[in-house]
Amino acid sequence: MTHFAIRASRTDRSPNRWRKTWIGLSRLGVCALVSGPLLSAAATAAAAKEAKDGRTFALVQSLVHEVGPRFAGSEGDLRAVAWAVRTGERLGFDRVLRETVEVPRWVRGEAAVELRSPWVQPLVAVSLGGSVGTPPEGIEADVVAALDTEELSKLPEERVRGRIVFLSKRMERSADGSGYGKTVGNRSRGAIEAAKKGAVAVLIRSVGTSSARFAHTGAMRYEEGVPRIPALALANVDADLLEAALASGKPTRVLLRSSARSEGTAESANVLLEVRGRERPEEIVLLAAHLDSWDVGPSANDDAAGVAIVLEAARRLLELPERPRRTVRVVLFANEEFGLSGARAYGETHREELGRHVGALEADLGSGGVRAFRVRVSEADRPGVLDLARQLEAKLGIPFEAAPARGGADIGGLARFGVPLFDLAPDATHYFDVHHTANDTLATIDREGLEHQMEAFFEVARWLAERPEPLGRVAPEPARAGPGPGSD
Amino acid sequence: MTHFAIRASRTDRSPNRWRKTWIGLSRLGVCALVSGPLLSAAATAAAAKEAKDGRTFALVQSLVHEVGPRFAGSEGDLRAVAWAVRTGERLGFDRVLRETVEVPRWVRGEAAVELRSPWVQPLVAVSLGGSVGTPPEGIEADVVAALDTEELSKLPEERVRGRIVFLSKRMERSADGSGYGKTVGNRSRGAIEAAKKGAVAVLIRSVGTSSARFAHTGAMRYEEGVPRIPALALANVDADLLEAALASGKPTRVLLRSSARSEGTAESANVLLEVRGRERPEEIVLLAAHLDSWDVGPSANDDAAGVAIVLEAARRLLELPERPRRTVRVVLFANEEFGLSGARAYGETHREELGRHVGALEADLGSGGVRAFRVRVSEADRPGVLDLARQLEAKLGIPFEAAPARGGADIGGLARFGVPLFDLAPDATHYFDVHHTANDTLATIDREGLEHQMEAFFEVARWLAERPEPLGRVAPEPARAGPGPGSD
Repeated sequence: MTHFAIRASRTDRSPNRWRKTWIGLSRLGVCALVSGPLLSAAATAAAAKEAKDGRTFALVQSLVHEVGPRFAGSEGDLRAVAWAVRTGERLGFDRVLRETVEVPRWVRGEAAVELRSPWVQPLVAVSLGGSVGTPPEGIEADVVAALDTEELSKLPEERVRGRIVFLSKRMERSADGSGYGKTVGNRSRGAIEAAKKGAVAVLIRSVGTSSARFAHTGAMRYEEGVPRIPALALANVDADLLEAALASGKPTRVLLRSSARSEGTAESANVLLEVRGRERPEEIVLLAAHLDSWDVGPSANDDAAGVAIVLEAARRLLELPERPRRTVRVVLFANEEFGLSGARAYGETHREELGRHVGALEADLGSGGVRAFRVRVSEADRPGVLDLARQLEAKLGIPFEAAPARGGADIGGLARFGVPLFDLAPDATHYFDVHHTANDTLATIDREGLEHQMEAFFEVARWLAERPEPLGRVAPEPARAGPGPGSD
Repeated sequence: MTHFAIRASRTDRSPNRWRKTWIGLSRLGVCALVSGPLLSAAATAAAAKEAKDGRTFALVQSLVHEVGPRFAGSEGDLRAVAWAVRTGERLGFDRVLRETVEVPRWVRGEAAVELRSPWVQPLVAVSLGGSVGTPPEGIEADVVAALDTEELSKLPEERVRGRIVFLSKRMERSADGSGYGKTVGNRSRGAIEAAKKGAVAVLIRSVGTSSARFAHTGAMRYEEGVPRIPALALANVDADLLEAALASGKPTRVLLRSSARSEGTAESANVLLEVRGRERPEEIVLLAAHLDSWDVGPSANDDAAGVAIVLEAARRLLELPERPRRTVRVVLFANEEFGLSGARAYGETHREELGRHVGALEADLGSGGVRAFRVRVSEADRPGVLDLARQLEAKLGIPFEAAPARGGADIGGLARFGVPLFDLAPDATHYFDVHHTANDTLATIDREGLEHQMEAFFEVARWLAERPEPLGRVAPEPARAGPGPGSD
């Protein structure tokens, strides 16, 4: 029992505002057996801390290993629901509820995209969620390119009719993930705008920041009265190749095949896990994440990380000497990715309770450390909340940002009901490298960032659940301009 | 014409021994048009240098964009041969020869691997080159693990019979790529050793160093008299998952499906491109790379990089005021990856000439900068060659290593004929992240390293082709222990 490892947290990510050094105890299990009595109090505390530090990651690992992909309405989705119920019971929540949610069922099938001219080779592509497929023989057509739907809307119809539209805009990397909102319109509305001009299909450059050869899926939409054309995303390097083909000046043709299809609806569930309030159990602090994922990968960051963060933060509340004053309710939402079915169902089922939701926060932007704290509270509550902000800055190095909290996709709608919202915005610099790809694996989890998020969720949840008076209602703001990062 | 960019070569890769600073001229094309007469002589030289510096990469790009995957016997392979002939003619080689080579034809088909127990989810896997497929319904069986074929050989037969063997050894990263030789036996001999014990299939952890979710293919072998069982490789993260499943203590079952199959033989070709010697054209300096690639990706590093390096080095010889004394022959070999058909055919077709091959060097270890120079020459020639080594050290910062050169897979066999060999060993630290995967793309090319290799090939080729007397024959050494990196 001689080996102590001093570890400093990584400092190579610039927006990384938290800096902590901690002492870890290596090979704890063995040493505790061999030389248990010799452990000093400090070593014991450090060991306990290390054991705790690994728990959030262990929850991510459990969901990733034991369930993996869990697309709404799939068998994996049902296994995820069973996992959540089982895990909630194992962790000792006071109440574990499974609330059935109907979800649309979309099946990816197979997709293949081939550049046919001026050169012949396969392109790595993925169908966008909700897309129709092609006829079995595929669709082969000349390609016409535009940067985005806006540029597309300016192309004369005769240049687009009968062609495959390629939307080439590249997502830019940033810590706040703001590049996502600037490019995701190509994905969500590309098929609509292309079909309006008579295109036979739409191909987009993946909404993602990595040059590793993965295509990024994600939800797309159709519009009533506009033909439904297939929509697929190319891996970034394959989009580069298509651009080079177009730049060659020779006719550029692509062949698409996809057997994507919709198959009615299926059953899924929201899973609610409660730490029951000791004094005001009817007042609810909501911790949100989503249990579903895209089908292409184990989705460790999106959103096993969020699931683990809210579960572990709540478990720490369960371990306090007494329950907090109010109820802390973890909601693991069904089908965030493909239509927010769980959020809608929750809003309906718990309509009567929404007036007693005294705060909500959501973890759905990966496993990076928290880089900003934002709030949406009443003016009267602002001074009190700024005190919480100071605590977060002091304890965890999290700066306060004046911009209002918007929540994530699953809780943003609660603003309409006056629910105070809190953002613990993670560093999303690397999140969109793996988002909605087969490569969103355990290997890409930022373990320190994950722990930092969990600690921040714990602090905010405890503060909200424990303060003597609940936060007041927040005046509804004008309709939001659009979904923030983490939605779509 | 005001903007000069000063760029220092990257120094973040520790074994990076070459350090050079060069001046680049940005937006050259436009500026030359607009303000051509104002260019100083220094700027003109710098501009010419930058234009030249981009040429090696442009050749990689041309092969990757215009051909892409080029597996022996496939249509892509024939397109690659046509590309090589066309490119050789465009670059002005004195002679361009296409020599037909018969190659085995193996077809990957589709592969799917699913973990069935204790958890259910898909695993990312790829058939190994040459493997048989499974019956259409697949093969489902319990998994038994071993680190490598040696550990497998010690397992009692009753533990292996009727099972799927999983070989879990992980390749370690290093600048010299030596981790490859230590793990590649699992790939090449895994099916043989597993079948000897009665296994129904073999799964290996990919021979590769990245945790990005790509499975690495590569050649495997069968042995006469041993049943032929399917062999596939799992992506590293999926191998981790399988290990976790086995560690759970519960029965671990996997379902494999593969439609891989052999389909006789097909026609391919070696392409020879010559810089004709001005005095002793019958004496040949051989610059080697391989034109074929695995089928899973565009194979930018393996071996479009090598093709570009030897082509560009030879082009620089063509641009000298006079031809070198001897002939420099670039050989772009057919089917290195799946059985060295091109190397064998070359040895037969050019048997009579091999005694007049005065030196051979091969580029087939990616696009990293050169980290070592090694030679295999006669004792009499050693002092002269050490002078070349000093030049490489002085000009390009390349250290000399005393260990003998072994050549790559395509030229290693020339040692039997007394041909002097030269290794310009690249930094392979990142090569095995992408080797034999779909992710061996243009985005993973080390542009500075590529240029450094090309310059080194040029220097060695020129020295060998120009010195007054040819190097003498080298006494054959005992049979080599096994193939080096770049083979298999």
